[in-house]
Amino acid sequence: MVQSLLNAGLLFASGVLAANGVGGVKNGLARTPQMGWDNWNAFGCDVSEELLISTANRMVDYGLRDAGYQYVVLDDCWSAGRSENGTLVANSTRFPNGMAHVADSIHNLGMKFGMYATAGSLTCGRYEGSLGYEEVDAQTFAGWGVDYLKYDNCYNEGQEGTPLITYNRYKRMSDALNATGRPILYSMCNWGTDYPWKWAQTVANSWRMSGDITDNFNRVDPRCPCSGDEGYDCALPGFHCSAMNILNKMAPYPDKGQPGAWNDLDMLEVGNGGMTDTEYVTHFTMWAAVKSAMIMGNDIRAMDAKTLSILANPAVLAISQDKTGSSAVRRWRYYLPNNDNSSNATAAQGSGTIAEIQMWSGSLEGGDAFVGLLNLGDEAIMINASLADIFVDAGGSHSEEAQSSWDVYDLWANRMPDSAANIIIEANSTSAANLTGVYWNNTEKSYADGVAEEAPVLLGKHVGTVEAGGSISSMVESHGVYAVRLRMRAGPSKRKRDEL
Amino acid sequence: MVQSLLNAGLLFASGVLAANGVGGVKNGLARTPQMGWDNWNAFGCDVSEELLISTANRMVDYGLRDAGYQYVVLDDCWSAGRSENGTLVANSTRFPNGMAHVADSIHNLGMKFGMYATAGSLTCGRYEGSLGYEEVDAQTFAGWGVDYLKYDNCYNEGQEGTPLITYNRYKRMSDALNATGRPILYSMCNWGTDYPWKWAQTVANSWRMSGDITDNFNRVDPRCPCSGDEGYDCALPGFHCSAMNILNKMAPYPDKGQPGAWNDLDMLEVGNGGMTDTEYVTHFTMWAAVKSAMIMGNDIRAMDAKTLSILANPAVLAISQDKTGSSAVRRWRYYLPNNDNSSNATAAQGSGTIAEIQMWSGSLEGGDAFVGLLNLGDEAIMINASLADIFVDAGGSHSEEAQSSWDVYDLWANRMPDSAANIIIEANSTSAANLTGVYWNNTEKSYADGVAEEAPVLLGKHVGTVEAGGSISSMVESHGVYAVRLRMRAGPSKRKRDEL
Amino acid sequence: MVQSLLNAGLLFASGVLAANGVGGVKNGLARTPQMGWDNWNAFGCDVSEELLISTANRMVDYGLRDAGYQYVVLDDCWSAGRSENGTLVANSTRFPNGMAHVADSIHNLGMKFGMYATAGSLTCGRYEGSLGYEEVDAQTFAGWGVDYLKYDNCYNEGQEGTPLITYNRYKRMSDALNATGRPILYSMCNWGTDYPWKWAQTVANSWRMSGDITDNFNRVDPRCPCSGDEGYDCALPGFHCSAMNILNKMAPYPDKGQPGAWNDLDMLEVGNGGMTDTEYVTHFTMWAAVKSAMIMGNDIRAMDAKTLSILANPAVLAISQDKTGSSAVRRWRYYLPNNDNSSNATAAQGSGTIAEIQMWSGSLEGGDAFVGLLNLGDEAIMINASLADIFVDAGGSHSEEAQSSWDVYDLWANRMPDSAANIIIEANSTSAANLTGVYWNNTEKSYADGVAEEAPVLLGKHVGTVEAGGSISSMVESHGVYAVRLRMRAGPSKRKRDEL
Amino acid sequence: MVQSLLNAGLLFASGVLAANGVGGVKNGLARTPQMGWDNWNAFGCDVSEELLISTANRMVDYGLRDAGYQYVVLDDCWSAGRSENGTLVANSTRFPNGMAHVADSIHNLGMKFGMYATAGSLTCGRYEGSLGYEEVDAQTFAGWGVDYLKYDNCYNEGQEGTPLITYNRYKRMSDALNATGRPILYSMCNWGTDYPWKWAQTVANSWRMSGDITDNFNRVDPRCPCSGDEGYDCALPGFHCSAMNILNKMAPYPDKGQPGAWNDLDMLEVGNGGMTDTEYVTHFTMWAAVKSAMIMGNDIRAMDAKTLSILANPAVLAISQDKTGSSAVRRWRYYLPNNDNSSNATAAQGSGTIAEIQMWSGSLEGGDAFVGLLNLGDEAIMINASLADIFVDAGGSHSEEAQSSWDVYDLWANRMPDSAANIIIEANSTSAANLTGVYWNNTEKSYADGVAEEAPVLLGKHVGTVEAGGSISSMVESHGVYAVRLRMRAGPSKRKRDEL
Repeated sequence: MVQSLLNAGLLFASGVLAANGVGGVKNGLARTPQMGWDNWNAFGCDVSEELLISTANRMVDYGLRDAGYQYVVLDDCWSAGRSENGTLVANSTRFPNGMAHVADSIHNLGMKFGMYATAGSLTCGRYEGSLGYEEVDAQTFAGWGVDYLKYDNCYNEGQEGTPLITYNRYKRMSDALNATGRPILYSMCNWGTDYPWKWAQTVANSWRMSGDITDNFNRVDPRCPCSGDEGYDCALPGFHCSAMNILNKMAPYPDKGQPGAWNDLDMLEVGNGGMTDTEYVTHFTMWAAVKSAMIMGNDIRAMDAKTLSILANPAVLAISQDKTGSSAVRRWRYYLPNNDNSSNATAAQGSGTIAEIQMWSGSLEGGDAFVGLLNLGDEAIMINASLADIFVDAGGSHSEEAQSSWDVYDLWANRMPDSAANIIIEANSTSAANLTGVYWNNTEKSYADGVAEEAPVLLGKHVGTVEAGGSISSMVESHGVYAVRLRMRAGPSKRKRDEL
Repeated sequence: MVQSLLNAGLLFASGVLAANGVGGVKNGLARTPQMGWDNWNAFGCDVSEELLISTANRMVDYGLRDAGYQYVVLDDCWSAGRSENGTLVANSTRFPNGMAHVADSIHNLGMKFGMYATAGSLTCGRYEGSLGYEEVDAQTFAGWGVDYLKYDNCYNEGQEGTPLITYNRYKRMSDALNATGRPILYSMCNWGTDYPWKWAQTVANSWRMSGDITDNFNRVDPRCPCSGDEGYDCALPGFHCSAMNILNKMAPYPDKGQPGAWNDLDMLEVGNGGMTDTEYVTHFTMWAAVKSAMIMGNDIRAMDAKTLSILANPAVLAISQDKTGSSAVRRWRYYLPNNDNSSNATAAQGSGTIAEIQMWSGSLEGGDAFVGLLNLGDEAIMINASLADIFVDAGGSHSEEAQSSWDVYDLWANRMPDSAANIIIEANSTSAANLTGVYWNNTEKSYADGVAEEAPVLLGKHVGTVEAGGSISSMVESHGVYAVRLRMRAGPSKRKRDEL
Repeated sequence: MVQSLLNAGLLFASGVLAANGVGGVKNGLARTPQMGWDNWNAFGCDVSEELLISTANRMVDYGLRDAGYQYVVLDDCWSAGRSENGTLVANSTRFPNGMAHVADSIHNLGMKFGMYATAGSLTCGRYEGSLGYEEVDAQTFAGWGVDYLKYDNCYNEGQEGTPLITYNRYKRMSDALNATGRPILYSMCNWGTDYPWKWAQTVANSWRMSGDITDNFNRVDPRCPCSGDEGYDCALPGFHCSAMNILNKMAPYPDKGQPGAWNDLDMLEVGNGGMTDTEYVTHFTMWAAVKSAMIMGNDIRAMDAKTLSILANPAVLAISQDKTGSSAVRRWRYYLPNNDNSSNATAAQGSGTIAEIQMWSGSLEGGDAFVGLLNLGDEAIMINASLADIFVDAGGSHSEEAQSSWDVYDLWANRMPDSAANIIIEANSTSAANLTGVYWNNTEKSYADGVAEEAPVLLGKHVGTVEAGGSISSMVESHGVYAVRLRMRAGPSKRKRDEL
Repeated sequence: MVQSLLNAGLLFASGVLAANGVGGVKNGLARTPQMGWDNWNAFGCDVSEELLISTANRMVDYGLRDAGYQYVVLDDCWSAGRSENGTLVANSTRFPNGMAHVADSIHNLGMKFGMYATAGSLTCGRYEGSLGYEEVDAQTFAGWGVDYLKYDNCYNEGQEGTPLITYNRYKRMSDALNATGRPILYSMCNWGTDYPWKWAQTVANSWRMSGDITDNFNRVDPRCPCSGDEGYDCALPGFHCSAMNILNKMAPYPDKGQPGAWNDLDMLEVGNGGMTDTEYVTHFTMWAAVKSAMIMGNDIRAMDAKTLSILANPAVLAISQDKTGSSAVRRWRYYLPNNDNSSNATAAQGSGTIAEIQMWSGSLEGGDAFVGLLNLGDEAIMINASLADIFVDAGGSHSEEAQSSWDVYDLWANRMPDSAANIIIEANSTSAANLTGVYWNNTEKSYADGVAEEAPVLLGKHVGTVEAGGSISSMVESHGVYAVRLRMRAGPSKRKRDEL
């Protein structure tokens, strides 16, 4: 059997699990998907103390820390090799005060510090790798005050090909990190090789499940050769994978994430310029809905208003940080003829192109549900989703859920106005703008507690109801998503909940 | 070579095999596919002593024990972890009198007790797993009086990827169970990973061959990504697999089951509410025809008449428990245009949908044959099957079988009336209803002996004959099956049999 | 690089190879594909001393021994288990005089004796397997006088999944056979698992490359799930594979066979009744053309005239036993619309069916070429093949070969008349019939020597010429083959040859 | 993450890498793709001292050495087995003065000497293999003065199936070569088995990534069964692979090559007669563009003018030897209806054939770009490529690159005239012809230095400009390529470069 019923809330004996700290790697971290920032998508190897600390400060100023983005992660190219005693040494030009100083500075801002290493002989940037140096490197990281390790997969000396080979390689660092005694979030980055969603839950807090993301919504690139529902069985993860490529690749195993151990669809591209605002909204919403790690990848210091108002959207972040840890599931996809020329793959099919729509839904704490209606075509389209399909796991049209009526809350209708975002950016402070109803301070009160208290800013904007047996409908623009929270209004589901 | 000729009855030296006890795991159990009940499909983690014992009592009352459903299987979530000496401990709230008491209670009803463990570090419900504890756990189970072990595959620490890796992991428990000296039916549940049908016959009594079943006839779900005849090579078994998904996945290797070692298509969903009565009839018939393990998965205590009359159908159970242990084989499938909108996969193919019909047939003891005509489309359709196709393995149109005439017995025409079933349910006793011709007491006389004696209730209702070279024809409703037993009437096959 | 140029005759340093005995397993056997008979296809487990010896006698009587069918192979089910000292014991009822007696009897007829064992814990018929008993069983076989071992793959205890795992398992028996000192032809039967064509040349004389054949030309069966050019990568070899399924599966690696080590497309079904005479001719011709092992599988003692005249066709056997050991290659396949309803796979594609034609060609000793034009559709069709396509490996239209003219010899035009075959069968002697021009006695003079001497019976019937740059054309009946030998007539190829 | 940003020039800390010599196998060789000649494609096993030395002399005479073709590689069939002390011995008939003499002769011409061995028990030509003899054979080669080893994969005794198994086998020779102390370029030839592009960078200088090339542009052959973008996952590399088959197979992993470690698309067929001049131009251009090893495969001593003018094209070789080592990437492919009958695969799709066009582009030193427009159809076609698509990795239409204007240099417009080539060939000397503007002497000054100095002969012929936001357009003949270098003219890219 698998975890379906467990995720659906039927697991009552959680006291046992909590006591063990099991249900994921045993460090107790990432009970909800980790949130933070990593420099790679925007800066690549152009790293420095200044970049990290200035970015961390802006994250505080812009309210992103308090929105939950806790980790500041330094990616590849920070190294100057190994010292004579074998320990990794930071590049002293770029990190003139050493890594411990960077960690301290970030800690002093109330944030956490992440770093990067590789389970190979070299990092992807061809610096010293950690394969065979797991213990010493883990000790170095812990000594510097590191709270998070992104652990990559380049130059792995052929150590892959069965789950067991890859598991053993990644477990070595897991054990080494645990042995330091410092809680260090362990973020595996082996691109889905050897199916980490099958086995990583007991050794890591998250695992990348695809090749690297690129800042594009759905462009086909031969360098990301696996796609769609067969993409889980991929001998070449590649890179230049579009956001939709990665999302669809993950559709077969939404159940594999769980508190403490998450699917990582790769760092966000929001704000990097390669997608439209609509596309970024879809990208961000779906990463939240499927409980991906949420690591920003843009230049925080040069952020525009629309980027900020996506990244800080409290109604969507409440989905990401929902207590159940239950991923949305793709309930259906339909193909329709259209004229989208944006995808080479489509064009490659010869005459006649195809548009695609999808419906995703998932369980939220307290009996709520997430619903997302996606339009992957190039023209706006009316999309309908029946309660029977939204609640198909509960039994479809005969389920108590489908026979109840629901309030519908739009997750984007209360998006922070550009004016407010611009005030924040210009003032370097959230307090300068009126953020009532558009922002949540997770540092003061967690998303989970806010949802439990029915904070309106977390539920979204009430836009209507859907009757028992009815459907949700919305025009959805090209590459857009209509994303809502459903809350029980009346009927058997409501009664069941009231009895709790 | 493979076992084809053997299964077709050409194996005469069976004395050798019987002497060795080989032809399956060497515990001598499951000479026909195991029958029983498991709580998971209906109850998930909501387990207790009360659930098991009350269900066992109802199984006796409703005649299900005597129909052959012998095993009462407790699934996941029963555990409270390990004691200081390393042995598994039952949850004392839910099992206040301990597991041995549950076992005794079930034994006292003339039934057998099954339990659940996992070949991983955790069970799927995240309780203590048995990986590395095979010997001690087998001893615990034997000590409690366990007769059956369902052995799951979650959190297996990467120990998969070649048949050899998985074989070694599952063999450890096989050896441990054998070492207890207690005959314990060993039911592997590794979802077909690393092709257990290739190697499990010598270590287990049955093996799951797919991801978990869901209570749906043929809905496509991305979480069950493998399908059809290519489904045997599946890197992600998934879950939410429909009944027809699983049936078609098994079509390539019907020969792999044999007395003592069976394909397990997962527990029955009959009575759980997600399919129509017609669909449940098809599901149940085909599980029997392909010699799957037959483990009920509904709430026995809240069973309705139609559910009971499916589960107790003696003519179908006689197919399941046939002495040959020979699975039905899919002889053909045809695709026809239709308007079925029930399947997203079909819809996803764009304009124009497709209906599918299939014909399965197989050998039964004494020269009889099973034939099933399936309609997977959404409209009733006339289906014809020629003797040449039914007996294609014997040589098709030129075979003695195709040149004989046959009596046709409908396996569902004598289905227990709702009135009788309701009497049983209301009275908690089979003796209250007149079950003549609709029920078989396997405790008194086995299905095999009944068939040998030509008990009419086991043959089905005689509905006609088919002449040499002829065809069987029937209208078959949407998602239905026309299922019959053929018995030789005249011609070369009849003469050959009479000579025996 | 691969062996292409080598097979094309550019390898001149063969003295080195001959000295080493390399280029295959080092026992020196099977310099051309082995020929013989095995009981399985016709008799399955119904084996006995009487069957073997009477069949061997008929093989002599009917001229099959002298046509080259040297091995009489006993398949599964001969065993009575192991003795107390661990050696295999023959079933004394069926082999009352013991196996050595069978071997002696066959040897006395001037033939060789083959047996069967399995690289698993049980044989496919569930008798004692040889896994872990390789040395003792090899000694037993050698002691009995065995000359040939078919080594099967059932119940292999999960020992597969990489070429290395399977190689090691099969090499153990290879080494054990070599250690006996007796030359024993080693015929691997692992159904293509883990790609034996990649590695078996140094350990075995032949390797099965597919699931078991069935006596059908091209029927699709779900139990043989891999097909076509992708069939080389098959996780479930299955059984009930049609002749054309197997032929097409082998199309990607014709180069893998070589003197001493051959692709084995499984035993012949010629004469077993499931195909038409035309289909058997195609089956037999193509097995010869691709240098498969040639093991008859019919009941020799009940053979009809047409079966004998296929199996004894000297012009086709000269292709099989050609000195180059070079397989024919599929040069092209085309699909055409037709009305063939014989294939479920075709029907399954919905409305409109497809016929297929193929052209195979290959090099023969002395610059000759084999050409086969196959019609897989259900209606006769005119097929044309250009010299450019026939000689595409040599450079196509610009090659010396395509710019030469050729004599065309039909390989079936001199087929033994039914009258002659019937005389042989009735008289139990070839000498009773006039076989001039229709039979070759390989015992007196090998096929290779006969071809070198231009024996007309081996070349086939001269039916015309094809000019430089021209084409071969023939009407080919449904499921038939037009098979010819080309011999240089004039032009650059002829001059090149004359210079040798 | 992967190497994308690194390859795009963002890696600034290269001092670290250079110091370590990492970023490839640590022998410091092949900082640009190796260039040379190997006898196999033209001569197969027909090798001798005379062939090698006479060819090397012609390479000098024809200016090919000075064009950069440095290595003279002896392929298979040179061996006479092992001596009593276990060392490999050369065939004394064909190499009467021994291998050291051959090496010396080649060294005396200012060139380097390559040899061939196999990571198996036999070479593909069935001579003694080096598996298990790695150290002794490496010492032998070093002692003879060998500078390059092509290491093949035949008869590998099943040692494959996971990257780890193959890595270990090939690493043994890598270590052995390094242990000799002589710098020996290590050219792996394992046909892409077990994905060498994932792991070979740290053990070898190049790796074959497909089955053997054949002298054909795009013919489909069943013996090369993998094709297209799925070809990276190939269980049977095969042989008789067309140039376009190999090119498309490599499209998914252009990033895997890097200075010191290259994808090898197999030896060139230019001049061997199986393709048209247009096709050879395309073949040669694309091998250069994707940074394949550049090993000529024709008979240098019988070369015609057009072959010489392809192989010596300085503008194309400057792409191959560009300092970035960055491969071109396929940006799009489109399919169009046409009447090409040259491909069986196309024909096999039934009625209606399809033409294909592709656009490849890549980064060059100094901000230049390569663009190639390919026409795989059988009729000339106008192909357009927008700057947005050419620079999609930089951000597409919004990138600085797409918003700049560019000079366009045709890489083939300055091709050496036949008259000049014929003078060279007749005179056995480049000095006899006027090669101004059509030839580059890499011995005098490297391609990289020449490009840095803006040598016109290396840039190509200036044929126009493309404005910001514009497109390149050209009629491209059937099977041809329009190949250009773009150089920044004005706009943000130009300004950025000028600031450097």
